[in-house]
Amino acid sequence: MSKKIIFSGMRPTGSLHIGHLSVVQNWAARQDEYECYYAVVDWHALTTGFEDKIPLRELARSITLDWLSVGLDPEKCSIFVQSAVKEHAELHLLFSMFTPLSWLERVPTYKDQLQQLGRDGKDLRMYGFLGYPLLQAADILAYRAEAVPVGEDQLPHIEFCREVARRFNHLYGPLFPEPQALVGKTPLLPGVDGRKMSKSYNNSIAITASPAEIAAQTRQMVTDPARVRKDDPGHPEVCVAHKFHKIYSADRITELEADCRAGRVGCAVCKKELAAAIDRVLAPYRERRAYWEEGDRVERVLAAGQEKARAAAAETLRATRAAIGL
Amino acid sequence: MSKKIIFSGMRPTGSLHIGHLSVVQNWAARQDEYECYYAVVDWHALTTGFEDKIPLRELARSITLDWLSVGLDPEKCSIFVQSAVKEHAELHLLFSMFTPLSWLERVPTYKDQLQQLGRDGKDLRMYGFLGYPLLQAADILAYRAEAVPVGEDQLPHIEFCREVARRFNHLYGPLFPEPQALVGKTPLLPGVDGRKMSKSYNNSIAITASPAEIAAQTRQMVTDPARVRKDDPGHPEVCVAHKFHKIYSADRITELEADCRAGRVGCAVCKKELAAAIDRVLAPYRERRAYWEEGDRVERVLAAGQEKARAAAAETLRATRAAIGL
Repeated sequence: MSKKIIFSGMRPTGSLHIGHLSVVQNWAARQDEYECYYAVVDWHALTTGFEDKIPLRELARSITLDWLSVGLDPEKCSIFVQSAVKEHAELHLLFSMFTPLSWLERVPTYKDQLQQLGRDGKDLRMYGFLGYPLLQAADILAYRAEAVPVGEDQLPHIEFCREVARRFNHLYGPLFPEPQALVGKTPLLPGVDGRKMSKSYNNSIAITASPAEIAAQTRQMVTDPARVRKDDPGHPEVCVAHKFHKIYSADRITELEADCRAGRVGCAVCKKELAAAIDRVLAPYRERRAYWEEGDRVERVLAAGQEKARAAAAETLRATRAAIGL
Repeated sequence: MSKKIIFSGMRPTGSLHIGHLSVVQNWAARQDEYECYYAVVDWHALTTGFEDKIPLRELARSITLDWLSVGLDPEKCSIFVQSAVKEHAELHLLFSMFTPLSWLERVPTYKDQLQQLGRDGKDLRMYGFLGYPLLQAADILAYRAEAVPVGEDQLPHIEFCREVARRFNHLYGPLFPEPQALVGKTPLLPGVDGRKMSKSYNNSIAITASPAEIAAQTRQMVTDPARVRKDDPGHPEVCVAHKFHKIYSADRITELEADCRAGRVGCAVCKKELAAAIDRVLAPYRERRAYWEEGDRVERVLAAGQEKARAAAAETLRATRAAIGL
């Protein structure tokens, strides 16, 4: 029996940090069980950043290197850049013919993002911005993917994708599966200051961080403000470091919590342990990165991934055109 | 000095009739002076016909045969099917990122067509229908065309295309010309019953019509209802046959008008002369058609045209991607 197909993508917005590391770990965890297509979705970066002169080519290379460092295996999955597979654009156009504007207008993220980015002074009432869930649907369905590893926030888009698949199948005959979401179990982590982790807030830990950098950023983590002296009892539920311990020191979490509440261990010591735990996860990534950084290894991975992706997408498009009568 | 580039397209909606013959004559008239790209725009047919199971492949072949019959010369111009040149879809997607929804919503034909087709029971509030002027802009600008032979009704779309070109050039640096409209001089002709000429109204004369078919349809033409006997004075301004004489008997039009007003020539005789005049135009088309119908000549024309179009569009897309940073 052939493996089920999954597709997922990430925008090339900058270096991967440990705030969204779990997404890529989720991808890597699926690569034995599924036939995986993982794309750097550079066209999507344009839906909100068309004015920003983003160096998309360099960012695509750099995020691919991050993925490989975390453990995506190009022998097991196809890693490629979206804009290199034109079939996504063609399928997007074909789907656009029968996709009601009202479906796109009611995607919950649409109005939220319009408002949020509007506050930053961006006018995003663009045709492409309205259509980006449809481009996502084309990304996924170009491979007739049956499942999509995503975060909770993407669930409305997967539902939208299922609607598009159903409508196509209804109009032209069964061709597309209705993909399921594979929601990762690990929650996204906040920045060291408790806000959303983002490079631009200077509150992130890059996956390439050295032990010294990890230690420095961990020391910045916001802890229980009520704990003035190290033997004051702590409240782990309000401590950023504790959120990280839950992930990085899962086997010691009960003990760590008890020590904190009892005021047995001070924040400085607790954070040192956390920095060491984070480093134990990131150290093998740094090693693997050293391998992939050499020569044109990343370019070769992308070239091979594109070839596999193109072949699969071209086959889907042949079937799609035939169904429509083109 | 290299020739200026022009682009134009026509939907594969059925056989060409003499009502829109002037459009193709306008194309043929330009082929010595310009570098011409003429496309069967099959994707556009889907914007209003996605539910109709149109046999687009056959219709594309048949309209190409019509064009060749009228005199498009594949040595002089590139004739191809839009959906075979994926760059149109890619450019459409790239343009979509920075094209405001409001620009599309205010294209005059958008609301008109929504209303008109809404009356026929079609719901066209689709993403692709809203975006079709943007697809037209991509069609034209994929060749960096400087001019577009069109009918009067298409002028707002050319203006829209110019706006898209300006916005791209403003955001990413000068790359696209702002195309001019080349409006044909010959007015569109009505159907024999005075309504819009359309195969579905059975009021059209196909360009493939035999002399007997031309005569039969010409006899059906609505003339001055006040003219009961053949020596009654006529009113050419209300006569459909007279509209055709203006085009097909231009050199005799003063005499014909005078004879009609004076009641010197009856409608039957006048229509016989018209049928002969129409046949003099269509006869060489029938002959040329016999040549192009043989074997796979049409397929070869389309294959060669696609190759030239693809090469030109691919070059534009390379420059476009580089300007955006992809």
